[in-house]
Amino acid sequence: MNLLLLHPEDFVAVSDAPGEESRARITGRRFEHVRNVHRAAVGDELRIGVLGGALGRGRVIALSDGQLELAILLDRQPPPPSPITLVLALPRPLVLKRVLIHATSLGVKRIALIHARRVEKSYWQSDALSGETLRHNLLLGLEQAGDTVLPDVSLHPRFRVFAEDVLPALRGSFRGFVAHPEATAVCPRQVSGCVIIAIGPEGGFIPYEVDMLASAGLEPVRFGDRILRIEAAVPWLIARLG
Amino acid sequence: MNLLLLHPEDFVAVSDAPGEESRARITGRRFEHVRNVHRAAVGDELRIGVLGGALGRGRVIALSDGQLELAILLDRQPPPPSPITLVLALPRPLVLKRVLIHATSLGVKRIALIHARRVEKSYWQSDALSGETLRHNLLLGLEQAGDTVLPDVSLHPRFRVFAEDVLPALRGSFRGFVAHPEATAVCPRQVSGCVIIAIGPEGGFIPYEVDMLASAGLEPVRFGDRILRIEAAVPWLIARLG
Repeated sequence: MNLLLLHPEDFVAVSDAPGEESRARITGRRFEHVRNVHRAAVGDELRIGVLGGALGRGRVIALSDGQLELAILLDRQPPPPSPITLVLALPRPLVLKRVLIHATSLGVKRIALIHARRVEKSYWQSDALSGETLRHNLLLGLEQAGDTVLPDVSLHPRFRVFAEDVLPALRGSFRGFVAHPEATAVCPRQVSGCVIIAIGPEGGFIPYEVDMLASAGLEPVRFGDRILRIEAAVPWLIARLG
Repeated sequence: MNLLLLHPEDFVAVSDAPGEESRARITGRRFEHVRNVHRAAVGDELRIGVLGGALGRGRVIALSDGQLELAILLDRQPPPPSPITLVLALPRPLVLKRVLIHATSLGVKRIALIHARRVEKSYWQSDALSGETLRHNLLLGLEQAGDTVLPDVSLHPRFRVFAEDVLPALRGSFRGFVAHPEATAVCPRQVSGCVIIAIGPEGGFIPYEVDMLASAGLEPVRFGDRILRIEAAVPWLIARLG
């Protein structure tokens, strides 16, 4: 946790007056982390951010067994978002968790999780897709990177509906790519503007799926001469395209 | 497993004569995977590679309860290696396992695992560092990417000895970087030639360590405005520098 993220309900006093600080109180997981890992004491300053808002510093003004009170100074904006939209064939739950944390830490703000032939149907029943668990992993990604803006994650359990009805609007007039080991083109570098990139399941998209995605304007590209797991592919593609 | 890796002891007949194929027999984990996941049958062709050697195809010529026999045709070289040497502060064992798989799949051929102040000493006692477990994870990375050449992994449990005695020779006359969130420079793109990059533990290298690495010629750089976990940082840096 490189950033303590404050939620609106944490604030006990809000001030916009110059020289007067807002105050917030935290409990639970974040409190435990700040006490046990950061070993914060009264007077210490912590890097804080307001969920969906600015970044700044929080000075510890009170500390008890179960809560911490901070005087808040907000002084800068969160880092710029990534212009990349990720379309990911739903991976197995443990991998999904890590991919969501990594993608969020890399600044991705739009993630579409889709079905594909080689996605196990049972993955759609996983608790990893519950609103609360999804949000928890996205928050971990923001805390890691020092960002405050949650990504939007959408679920598309029917591939064809996604490819035909959702994807064209999601892509709009921007460029899009589908990672495909048999493509002849290698993924380009530094594509300007918004970009959408689709990554298949273990074993890849089937030819029918690649064709459907290509019909919606995604150009098939490969990662050089290698096949990567989704966890390595996501940061690699973001650095390559960004 | 996108590639069935054959070891020298798998070969039951080796031929260099034109039109005559070598033969290999596999058992154990690889056999189980080919039978249960690929569901290979007699006559099927599999993507194969010889550890440390060439890539090609293997035609299944016999299949029993416990083994598989292949007729081998080798016809091309493995993908080019990455010119990047990774220096990683030893992460916790489960993370190490994934980082080794990802780095290997990305073609890295030199990995130095080092101690740092914020590395827990107990990590050095982990089974993840045993020769057999290390090799197993490197093989998984090769099988993932479709590569045959194992990386060299070295262990450096004394930071200072590494920074003073090992690092200068490892870097030679090439450029090197240390990932450091407080650096003013952002990591450059597409650096030509061999490059060495050091990535710190959770919480980062301490200032003394950054200074020592800088004295050995590593330039401190950051990942834009974000702080990444090592698992995201490794693929990101490889795409960015490569």
